[in-house]
Amino acid sequence: MPRVYNFSAGPAVLPEAVLQEAADEMLDYRGSGMSVMEMSHRSKTYDTIIKEAEADLRELMNIPDNYRVLFLQGGASTQFAMVPMNLMKNKVADYIVTGQWAKKAYQEAGMYGQANKIATSEDKTFSYIPDCSDLPVSDQADYVYICENNTIYGTKYKTLPNTKGKTLVADLSSCFLSEPVDVAKYGLVFAGAQKNVGPAGVMIVIIREDLITEDVLPGTPSMLRYKIHDDNQSLYNTPPAYGIYICGKVFKWLKERGGLAAMKVYNEKKAAVLYDFLDESKMFRGTVRKEDRSLMNIPFITGNGELDAKFVREAKAAGFENLKGHRSVGGMRASIYNAMPVEGVEKLVAFMKRFEADNA
Amino acid sequence: MPRVYNFSAGPAVLPEAVLQEAADEMLDYRGSGMSVMEMSHRSKTYDTIIKEAEADLRELMNIPDNYRVLFLQGGASTQFAMVPMNLMKNKVADYIVTGQWAKKAYQEAGMYGQANKIATSEDKTFSYIPDCSDLPVSDQADYVYICENNTIYGTKYKTLPNTKGKTLVADLSSCFLSEPVDVAKYGLVFAGAQKNVGPAGVMIVIIREDLITEDVLPGTPSMLRYKIHDDNQSLYNTPPAYGIYICGKVFKWLKERGGLAAMKVYNEKKAAVLYDFLDESKMFRGTVRKEDRSLMNIPFITGNGELDAKFVREAKAAGFENLKGHRSVGGMRASIYNAMPVEGVEKLVAFMKRFEADNA
Repeated sequence: MPRVYNFSAGPAVLPEAVLQEAADEMLDYRGSGMSVMEMSHRSKTYDTIIKEAEADLRELMNIPDNYRVLFLQGGASTQFAMVPMNLMKNKVADYIVTGQWAKKAYQEAGMYGQANKIATSEDKTFSYIPDCSDLPVSDQADYVYICENNTIYGTKYKTLPNTKGKTLVADLSSCFLSEPVDVAKYGLVFAGAQKNVGPAGVMIVIIREDLITEDVLPGTPSMLRYKIHDDNQSLYNTPPAYGIYICGKVFKWLKERGGLAAMKVYNEKKAAVLYDFLDESKMFRGTVRKEDRSLMNIPFITGNGELDAKFVREAKAAGFENLKGHRSVGGMRASIYNAMPVEGVEKLVAFMKRFEADNA
Repeated sequence: MPRVYNFSAGPAVLPEAVLQEAADEMLDYRGSGMSVMEMSHRSKTYDTIIKEAEADLRELMNIPDNYRVLFLQGGASTQFAMVPMNLMKNKVADYIVTGQWAKKAYQEAGMYGQANKIATSEDKTFSYIPDCSDLPVSDQADYVYICENNTIYGTKYKTLPNTKGKTLVADLSSCFLSEPVDVAKYGLVFAGAQKNVGPAGVMIVIIREDLITEDVLPGTPSMLRYKIHDDNQSLYNTPPAYGIYICGKVFKWLKERGGLAAMKVYNEKKAAVLYDFLDESKMFRGTVRKEDRSLMNIPFITGNGELDAKFVREAKAAGFENLKGHRSVGGMRASIYNAMPVEGVEKLVAFMKRFEADNA
């Protein structure tokens, strides 16, 4: 079967060229006589793989020298605990709740100190980003936390919150590497690989070095201490080595395509194909306030549950996979990460137009 | 380049047939039009992959119905904290320290309660397993902990400790699936995949259901609670999906080869090829007390550091990779997991014989 257009929210589409290379190298990585899956993480060959991955990521994101890059495990859900356990020195943190994942992070932090919900968009099913220009940031807050792109709801911060001098911590999972980011504006960002970078099971953390200390909450497991991972350059224990290797290939693929500035142009063009159609369609409409629309995740509905289901079914039969929306929003969602070609979105829109005409 | 004989302690050699299948399916898993790496972990296709992996593992190990199988992340080092955080109800646990990993587990547990070292073999560089027939097990011990096969030192428990009725917890990472195990004798076993099963980044936990409770230590992160993973059948968050898929292939490969009883016969034969030679050689000798020898990890030395280094160098040039011993033992170590063919060990011994003759 030919490859489908895969609109999954994550794990998600990866560049075909990356997968082809991985397949070609599966039994023998560049004359080593073994797969990267079989390779000691302490070997010189693997050392080159992980160091190149970090160097390429640093180049792509223009990461300042006073930030460390860590390749960890456990997904964003582990960061929800790791962030407060490591950063809550005053035991106070402020959370902006713009979706299910930010809410989970907020709830988890409540186990470790005083987590304040200083803004939320839950009143309208998280369909917008609140005004964050003058929030009641706590005097004692160790950090202000955001989820910058909300995978389920399709919103994205276009302006970072005014944290009034407090450290900004951001979950970047579903917009990671989709456009340039000024890392210096954050204290810590993290991203699960399985949206825009690679396979599930790799967590990338970028953290300003002054935030890496031994002064963590009592009972913080060794594996949940940034300092231990930093001291050991992500090799405290065996890392998710094969996943990091795939991430490294995606970083090189992004560099070949011109880096993040070029990706932003491409992603804006790609998202516009779908948003422009949603704005003119009589049948389909987006669910998100226009100024807060994500470039990566685009939820849309017909307003008729049966028609939505029919659309998802027929789209699947036509080779457009994973378009069913999250149960909390309903309808459809097209996740169009870096590796989704513009042709995929154009063909989807052509299909939507036919569907609209056939079902008018 | 042809595939080498890879004696790495982990990540380690995997069955070539498994890698070939993974390569063939990389761009299109069985007509799905996508890689398993790109697949939603909530999809029907992936559900079949993870459910089959669990069913095959249950069949291979004959896991009783009152045990749950969890596929987690974070390696054994995460279990070192997760075990006490979940099981230390009385805040007392007894540890038998037979190597670096057992020692790390013991030290980590000390953060959460009273961890007692009730036996150790550190006096002789962990080259034997202590007599565990009548240890001073604590009355209040929530569990007794062992590392059943010690990767670095090449020892293995041939008899399980007498825990005097207390729950036995075992790190099985480096002997997992190498021979039949009576799961009912343990309360909890765990194994990192990267020795005998698959890529690094997958942690398999088998736990008796009565040990899964909400009553965990305060501050235990959600991701470190067995109950949350059990309630969600290992899909609380995105699992290391591609790694689990590879593990599933290895489980099927083991079933085709006759299961764990057949693997035990094969592994005994394979290890005997090397042990028999070590016992007759005038140059090489094993470092472990004979009755405690591991079938999986075989350290050996010449007694001359320069000669050891020369051997490792020449062996590498001849296609025998990763034979250098761990720095705490020195010399050499051949890890001969399930996927190492007996031919690999036979050829290694032939090479050792030539080396001995050439350097007598």
